[in-house]
Amino acid sequence: MDLELDYPFKLLEYFNGFRISKVIFSACELGVFDLLLQSQKPVSAAEVAQNLGTSGDGMERLLDVLVGIEILEVEHTEGTAYYSSTDVANLYLAKSSPKSLHDMIIYQSQTIYPLWNTMVDAVREGKNQNEKTFGLSSEDIFSAIYRSDEEMLKFMGLMNSTWVIDGHDVVTAFDLSGFKSVLDLGGCSGGLARELAKVYPASAVTVLDLPNVVQVAKRHFSEGDAAVHFQEGDFFDGDIPAADLYILARIIHDWKEDKCLQLLKKNHSCCPPGGGVLLVESLLFENRRGPIMAQIFSLNMLVQTEGKEHPPSYYMQLLNRAGFQEVQVCRTGKSYDAILAVK
Amino acid sequence: MDLELDYPFKLLEYFNGFRISKVIFSACELGVFDLLLQSQKPVSAAEVAQNLGTSGDGMERLLDVLVGIEILEVEHTEGTAYYSSTDVANLYLAKSSPKSLHDMIIYQSQTIYPLWNTMVDAVREGKNQNEKTFGLSSEDIFSAIYRSDEEMLKFMGLMNSTWVIDGHDVVTAFDLSGFKSVLDLGGCSGGLARELAKVYPASAVTVLDLPNVVQVAKRHFSEGDAAVHFQEGDFFDGDIPAADLYILARIIHDWKEDKCLQLLKKNHSCCPPGGGVLLVESLLFENRRGPIMAQIFSLNMLVQTEGKEHPPSYYMQLLNRAGFQEVQVCRTGKSYDAILAVK
Repeated sequence: MDLELDYPFKLLEYFNGFRISKVIFSACELGVFDLLLQSQKPVSAAEVAQNLGTSGDGMERLLDVLVGIEILEVEHTEGTAYYSSTDVANLYLAKSSPKSLHDMIIYQSQTIYPLWNTMVDAVREGKNQNEKTFGLSSEDIFSAIYRSDEEMLKFMGLMNSTWVIDGHDVVTAFDLSGFKSVLDLGGCSGGLARELAKVYPASAVTVLDLPNVVQVAKRHFSEGDAAVHFQEGDFFDGDIPAADLYILARIIHDWKEDKCLQLLKKNHSCCPPGGGVLLVESLLFENRRGPIMAQIFSLNMLVQTEGKEHPPSYYMQLLNRAGFQEVQVCRTGKSYDAILAVK
Repeated sequence: MDLELDYPFKLLEYFNGFRISKVIFSACELGVFDLLLQSQKPVSAAEVAQNLGTSGDGMERLLDVLVGIEILEVEHTEGTAYYSSTDVANLYLAKSSPKSLHDMIIYQSQTIYPLWNTMVDAVREGKNQNEKTFGLSSEDIFSAIYRSDEEMLKFMGLMNSTWVIDGHDVVTAFDLSGFKSVLDLGGCSGGLARELAKVYPASAVTVLDLPNVVQVAKRHFSEGDAAVHFQEGDFFDGDIPAADLYILARIIHDWKEDKCLQLLKKNHSCCPPGGGVLLVESLLFENRRGPIMAQIFSLNMLVQTEGKEHPPSYYMQLLNRAGFQEVQVCRTGKSYDAILAVK
């Protein structure tokens, strides 16, 4: 950090973080990575611009920043710059890639980015800014998240693309093959359930979510895939169907403790002995020093929900209070971790 | 990049860039770094929150992210976390520090961050979004930048804090001691002029800027400093007073080429033989591969001005066309570089 006292290179990089994010997001929204993937040869800024209906000058500057951060490559022939994609951009940034993070980017760029502009108020008030931003109750968080068909589809896209990169690690964190029926509560687009069904083809995997979510999931995300079933319901309000394993992926972190405890107690009473619950969350370190991703998510929960991220000890206590005695924690080293509690 | 194909750690870091920026910006806006600097001992989140009038929970999450990126430190005593600042935060993030970047942060957080939310449109249209965003002409860029007294003060704060960290390198890039009178055209708050006057106390240093800018500069930024004089004027419209050296710091990058060329010709005709002009800009590499800071600035010019950043060859040609034959370029390795042209 001594060098940093002479000149704050690292700090300035942090200050520029939002601009780097927006460069990648904007290129993704404009279709740059798809065009470069489809092209058989390097393309000039003018050609990219013409194909995507943008200005040549603006596109050139955007492409140059992407070269600067090594997401694109550039070569020069007779005074003209020709741009091509990298393997990483082809794999994660092109919309057509099976590992595409396109939908995650759209949600982050169009919803999370403006929402984080309210961070000072959120920290001051200690609650989400749904009321001030959208005129919607700060308590009914999914009314805000699902405030329009478009927003619902975007949010479901975010969830879906998360599990494209994180789902496999999460479902293989423990051997779940012994659970013959699995119910993913609030399983949204079915992204995690599909990863589970791939790894454990002998298990019956069902997603339970609100009726309108299930309808959108079937229409936009199910891909004619018969491995996962969808069921309409409200896991807070109604009864929960019996299952050997309940999955709560990124559910606990949305809500206040009492609501979560009631839900876990319901899980405990509905599953047979030997059955259990798999929590999927981004786990904080007990010493509060990281991981940075979990810390950032916790602040994100502040602006968007009524919950937060927690260290493993918190979940273990909560699960114990709900009746689960046998609890195991597995950190994946990626964005999401897993906790398995058996009855 | 092979590891990156297995899991996109670096990409996710880029996606999170805007959230890291906003964490630092928000902490700065709330006064966290000043409180920690003033405190003689580590402080709990509850105490920070109480002192700054924020929620305890929100403040705790904000402080934890700052620990995660090593801008703050944390220690634990009897189950409570106590936070303290780092040397870097004390030097650059506390408002009271002579090297404070507080004003740069305020401008970036409150003006640039929302402006960059228009990036897709800016690239599509190839021009700034002043008309759509503020209802102000996209051509009269300083009417937009100075659209209110508050915005003018914030913008001048940005310029001022830039020269606190970059001014010294820029004015020592060349030996300017031979120039006995120096006129900083569009010198804004006088930040760069003050750095120049410190290094060359024998030179008469004057800032020329628009009347309302000069008034705000004298009121808010001159600090009773007699080393720099201020003069009201319009360097595009009116005559320019004679001087041995004209400084154009971050001026050329704001405007279209013809306007810049006229200005440089005016400089050439007004300065004596042996006199010259010092351009201060963020210089692109000729091969378009960086520096990343200059590339980002160039995109920033797209959303905010009618100009862009350029490589040295561009400025050399422009200066030649304006009549300057002897041109030297000095890269500082930091955010701003210098080009000296002598008549």
